[in-house]
Amino acid sequence: MATITDQGTAKVGAQVGRSVPRLEGRDKVTGRAEYTHTMRLSGMLHVKLFRSTVAHGRIKSVDTSAAKKLPGVAHVVTIEDVRKVIPDPYYGPAFHDQPILADGKVRFVGEPVAAVLAADPHVAEQAAQLIVAEYEELPAVYDEVEALTSKVHVHDVLKPAGTFADLKHLKDAKGTNLALDYRLRRGDVDKAFASAAHVFEHEFRTQKVLHLSFEPHATIADYKDSGVTLHTASQGPSFVRTEIARLLGWPENKVRIKVPYLGSGYGSKLYIKLEALALALSMIARLPVKVALTMEEMFYQITKHPSTFRIKSGVDKDGKIIARKCEVYWNGGAYADIGPRVTQKSGLTASGPYDIDNVWIDSYALYTNMTPAGALRGFGVPQLVWAYESHTDMIARALKIDAVEFRRKNLLREGRPHPTGTVLKDAAIEKVLDRLVERINWKQPMDRGTGVVRRGRGLGIAIKAVISPTTSVAIVNVSADGSVALYCGTIDMGQGSDTAMAQMVGEVLNMPAESVRVVQRDTDVTPYDMGTLGSRSLFHMGHAVRRAAEDAQEKLKALACEVGEPEGSNIPIPALFVKKYGMQAGNVIGTGIYKPDYVPPAPGTGLSSNVTPFWMISGAGAEVEVDTETGHIKIAKLISVLDIGKSINPKIVETQISGAALMQLGFTMFEKMHLDGGQVTNASLADYKIPGFHDVPTAMENLTVDVTQSNGPFGAKGVGEVSTFCVSPAIANAIDDAVGVRLMELPLNPESVLRALRVKAGKPLGDE
Amino acid sequence: MATITDQGTAKVGAQVGRSVPRLEGRDKVTGRAEYTHTMRLSGMLHVKLFRSTVAHGRIKSVDTSAAKKLPGVAHVVTIEDVRKVIPDPYYGPAFHDQPILADGKVRFVGEPVAAVLAADPHVAEQAAQLIVAEYEELPAVYDEVEALTSKVHVHDVLKPAGTFADLKHLKDAKGTNLALDYRLRRGDVDKAFASAAHVFEHEFRTQKVLHLSFEPHATIADYKDSGVTLHTASQGPSFVRTEIARLLGWPENKVRIKVPYLGSGYGSKLYIKLEALALALSMIARLPVKVALTMEEMFYQITKHPSTFRIKSGVDKDGKIIARKCEVYWNGGAYADIGPRVTQKSGLTASGPYDIDNVWIDSYALYTNMTPAGALRGFGVPQLVWAYESHTDMIARALKIDAVEFRRKNLLREGRPHPTGTVLKDAAIEKVLDRLVERINWKQPMDRGTGVVRRGRGLGIAIKAVISPTTSVAIVNVSADGSVALYCGTIDMGQGSDTAMAQMVGEVLNMPAESVRVVQRDTDVTPYDMGTLGSRSLFHMGHAVRRAAEDAQEKLKALACEVGEPEGSNIPIPALFVKKYGMQAGNVIGTGIYKPDYVPPAPGTGLSSNVTPFWMISGAGAEVEVDTETGHIKIAKLISVLDIGKSINPKIVETQISGAALMQLGFTMFEKMHLDGGQVTNASLADYKIPGFHDVPTAMENLTVDVTQSNGPFGAKGVGEVSTFCVSPAIANAIDDAVGVRLMELPLNPESVLRALRVKAGKPLGDE
Repeated sequence: MATITDQGTAKVGAQVGRSVPRLEGRDKVTGRAEYTHTMRLSGMLHVKLFRSTVAHGRIKSVDTSAAKKLPGVAHVVTIEDVRKVIPDPYYGPAFHDQPILADGKVRFVGEPVAAVLAADPHVAEQAAQLIVAEYEELPAVYDEVEALTSKVHVHDVLKPAGTFADLKHLKDAKGTNLALDYRLRRGDVDKAFASAAHVFEHEFRTQKVLHLSFEPHATIADYKDSGVTLHTASQGPSFVRTEIARLLGWPENKVRIKVPYLGSGYGSKLYIKLEALALALSMIARLPVKVALTMEEMFYQITKHPSTFRIKSGVDKDGKIIARKCEVYWNGGAYADIGPRVTQKSGLTASGPYDIDNVWIDSYALYTNMTPAGALRGFGVPQLVWAYESHTDMIARALKIDAVEFRRKNLLREGRPHPTGTVLKDAAIEKVLDRLVERINWKQPMDRGTGVVRRGRGLGIAIKAVISPTTSVAIVNVSADGSVALYCGTIDMGQGSDTAMAQMVGEVLNMPAESVRVVQRDTDVTPYDMGTLGSRSLFHMGHAVRRAAEDAQEKLKALACEVGEPEGSNIPIPALFVKKYGMQAGNVIGTGIYKPDYVPPAPGTGLSSNVTPFWMISGAGAEVEVDTETGHIKIAKLISVLDIGKSINPKIVETQISGAALMQLGFTMFEKMHLDGGQVTNASLADYKIPGFHDVPTAMENLTVDVTQSNGPFGAKGVGEVSTFCVSPAIANAIDDAVGVRLMELPLNPESVLRALRVKAGKPLGDE
Repeated sequence: MATITDQGTAKVGAQVGRSVPRLEGRDKVTGRAEYTHTMRLSGMLHVKLFRSTVAHGRIKSVDTSAAKKLPGVAHVVTIEDVRKVIPDPYYGPAFHDQPILADGKVRFVGEPVAAVLAADPHVAEQAAQLIVAEYEELPAVYDEVEALTSKVHVHDVLKPAGTFADLKHLKDAKGTNLALDYRLRRGDVDKAFASAAHVFEHEFRTQKVLHLSFEPHATIADYKDSGVTLHTASQGPSFVRTEIARLLGWPENKVRIKVPYLGSGYGSKLYIKLEALALALSMIARLPVKVALTMEEMFYQITKHPSTFRIKSGVDKDGKIIARKCEVYWNGGAYADIGPRVTQKSGLTASGPYDIDNVWIDSYALYTNMTPAGALRGFGVPQLVWAYESHTDMIARALKIDAVEFRRKNLLREGRPHPTGTVLKDAAIEKVLDRLVERINWKQPMDRGTGVVRRGRGLGIAIKAVISPTTSVAIVNVSADGSVALYCGTIDMGQGSDTAMAQMVGEVLNMPAESVRVVQRDTDVTPYDMGTLGSRSLFHMGHAVRRAAEDAQEKLKALACEVGEPEGSNIPIPALFVKKYGMQAGNVIGTGIYKPDYVPPAPGTGLSSNVTPFWMISGAGAEVEVDTETGHIKIAKLISVLDIGKSINPKIVETQISGAALMQLGFTMFEKMHLDGGQVTNASLADYKIPGFHDVPTAMENLTVDVTQSNGPFGAKGVGEVSTFCVSPAIANAIDDAVGVRLMELPLNPESVLRALRVKAGKPLGDE
């Protein structure tokens, strides 16, 4: 009801900065919103996948005969069948390494080996259980550090996609699991370490966790010789279109990608996932085919990268960091997906928001025999911040410098060069730290307790560059009654982008945001967008939308002039159209396109004078209570402070901040995919613990600092992932503050606290 | 297969003038094309209508209780229920005269009185049979001439929609069936008649016939509070959107009209038909609702106008027509639909393609108690040409002047003013006549026979103005791989417009037409178009499409310039995008809008210096064989000659010409809705005869003259209806030529021939 009431009374103008209720909210809460997972096309077949039970092996045989005989089964498909319709059935954004179905080899437990198609999904499921495969098992590699030097190779030959210049040298590379080695070299770290008063070196690890979007992956492919339509739960329809067109050898305009409402993504639905398989199956069946995963199957689709980060810092006698060496190992799983880009784009900020003259970064993307890993809300940065902000705290503690004071000494400040060489602008690192210090009462002494339960506090700050260079395009279509449609490819997966974009159109055209219709994503309609990822959309698509609205506004002015209206006339838009077209007819169509300037990092050194159009800055502070007898950790307070420039929609911004912080809280304290010889042993939500309502911190603050992103649309920049960055180190630092133990591997659960306390007490726990 | 082969080998460039196979042909012949009639949405309810059995009556009661009790019935709806969701439930393009369901009164047999909704259409049908209605029957009026002066009034009060200025004076008019009186007054007809050497006066009539599109009317409405989507078999989605928005009091951008493939229209699916009812039912059910007619129900939806044309001509001693008076009565049925516009737009050319100084035209749109009438392939012109070209022949015959010679004496020639005052330009009337005379061997004597079967030949020529002023808008979207999508609201209902539009885009952008993707009609996507009607699309939308493509071309050139390409560089489009956006990213979006100049006819006189942007010209010639014993008429030859400017696609033009001519052949010789006291007595295709393969003329020629429409896109203009114009008089004239009887009412069937022969022989047939 709020939306409708608000529409009537909304102040015209001043759309930006107003907490407009989400435009699609009513359809979602009333159950009228359509998702790919709930869609049906007539004549559609359902698919059940038969998956590998071994982590690495050669396929000796796949016996589908019993499955084929089951009444109601339409097709049972293996890679041989796929190859008849798609001769080179390999896909992927960075490498063309992933086969549509396992091709000779399997590379992780859960890899799809065969697909059963039936009109009845239960028949498909039953038939899949009748398939029998035999494998010749091969040695497997799971650990990312081992993978760099292992003699076990996940792929015989590397096949870079040609999309990224920095992968080209890997074409046909053999005998390696290294999919990308991003390097940054600034100053002379060895010399600086030699001259340092103190040198600190630590290793931090993160675990394998899942995106767990509410709507599991789902794609419906409807293939016709004249063109193919895919209805898919995707964050990046433009990329899907390009990749499907490539697989078919077709022009892009014969491939239509439609994305209805999306039940969240968090990076799991980027690039290409089920789409190639659904396409192949629809080509074989010559009917619409739906591939939709169960919650359990999501454990075998895509995960966050486990990582190992070896970080070494040299500090001078005044507490100034003079050298930092970072070695980051990213566990990419069996197929590269966008891992190499995560490796590079996060890698370049691995040294943190600090002003360090000598920096050495190596960031390795590695293949292993596990479920592939991709982008997850932060594009690798949360793994880095976890390490470098724990490390920062450990140094301060060792040097007995106040952790905030130590950070202030080393902060990267406006106008100073980042290690890449790009001069810092509109990155309110110090303001964020100031606000954090104020809100967590850092300067007030804390009662840490003396009994079983001890209290502590900790914080962290972080920096991230946005993925560059990327392009967005938008169309604003004004109808003759003055109502407006926005065609924009940004996927609203719950983050409220439709509402924010409508606000920007409303601001330019001086009308309520609620009156702007945002057209659902469809590559036949919505023009190109690189993807809804990495908090890029508000900035990039925001600019494209603003430009399209401004273009429409200019054309409306020109129309007014053409029909003889005096300058500054306030003729209503409908009257303008009637004057020109003699009736309620016609349109005014504005277009906008945006790609920021960018200088690619120099090969070998990683240096660039303009590596990002904007910086994302955040800080988090935590207060914890640790039960020293059980190891139980209670989060008493969690404070997030962000520099996001101006807020387009403060209410949505607030929920984005709290949502991202709570998601990272889950990764920090509970979530972990347990693996045993490549087998996932907790592949269900009964066994894989995500945060519940009782895990929400007693107090949460979701704050922004009052700044403007000078080159942002209406002074704004992205917010979707920023508050994930510092949650893990803030909590680890608070635990150390409370009970004096340092945890260096996620998750920070009671078991790890208790083990650490026992080690500290000289009474380590056995494996009893 | 042709499409695909042709795509590979198509010469790039020279797209216009090439017989590109229909782009959508393959999907249609393989059964993969989707139509509204075959669509299903999940949760959708089906509708069966309960219809009036009386032609004019007050509704005393509607008992729906038994229907409501039938298991499986979701709702039974009458106007009272509709009023709860749509307080003013009246719709229509010219008058808001048509209730969504009968409201207090019924005005024709077959008018919907109640609607039954059920998930199972058979249940809905069964329930509809359980409804009982009682009526107080009222006197009814059926004849269009009687309707002008009848004391029986179909509507108590007239409610013009406000769309047309020339109807405004009728607001709240009472005691009349006259919905529009179009007048043209040129010179002084009375004086001219007084001075004429000869005066001829005749009356011609046409019957009630049907469009009979292959896909009956169908609409699915999916109402949500946030917006409504209608999937509908419509020729005019932009108008439907406007009218549905009006009924809801919503801005247009909350109303989405989607039109999948359309199984022909011929004018039956223009403006608003089932859409308002489907909307109301979906609002009541809060589920998707489908209203789809059976073939039989189409007899109660919309028909062609029956007409009476009283035509009087004064001819001087040299055979020059010096005065013509036309009184045309249009039988509009119970609701006006677009009848007033048919009345006016055809009315202005009622005096034919002749140069006559003194012209008086009255063209009356009249309400009667029959199924409403609307536009049907020719917008009234075939009814007029039937009369004036029969009349022309009768004068020539009476004056013993050769029929061609008589026409030549009186032809309207280039540069001369049409009776409206608009100077004739690009109207190749004489060339058409020349070609016709040549192809039918007019100058050669004909063997008319002496036995039972007699032979004869006849011809006719015609002129039509296009509906003005109307607007079309198009968008051309170039993707980064160089492939192109065209967003255009013209409905391809089988006439091949998608192919023709793609050819124009291809011509401008120098690429094969087959590589242009034409996006399916959707008002959220495809910009405004006035409607696919009256052969306006190729000209109006053609210009919009051409302009959009040219705009895109300009922007591509600007982009080339921006990235430093030298002028005239032949850089491929994909390379251009990569140069600008660093990857396969971005779009170039061109827009085009077109509305021709127009001067509205002056009230009272109908005069205008620019009444149409182009003239449609056609001629037809027929050779017949008449069996004088049975009255059977065989069409030995049917020749159509058209001025359509340049052909965009000669093959499609040819099939449009033959298709329209054969359709008019049906109206000329077979088709007639038989009415008995307002009851249709042949409402099925078993009883209503349409042409079959054996009715196709032994020889058919479908010809165009070699001319250019100087203001047309690529020299072209519309073709869809032009060859309907002269078929009826050509055949009637040929029958007279063969057996010396003059038929003045359609259809020209064996019975009417035989009756006329008997009258001529002084032995009239009784009614035995």
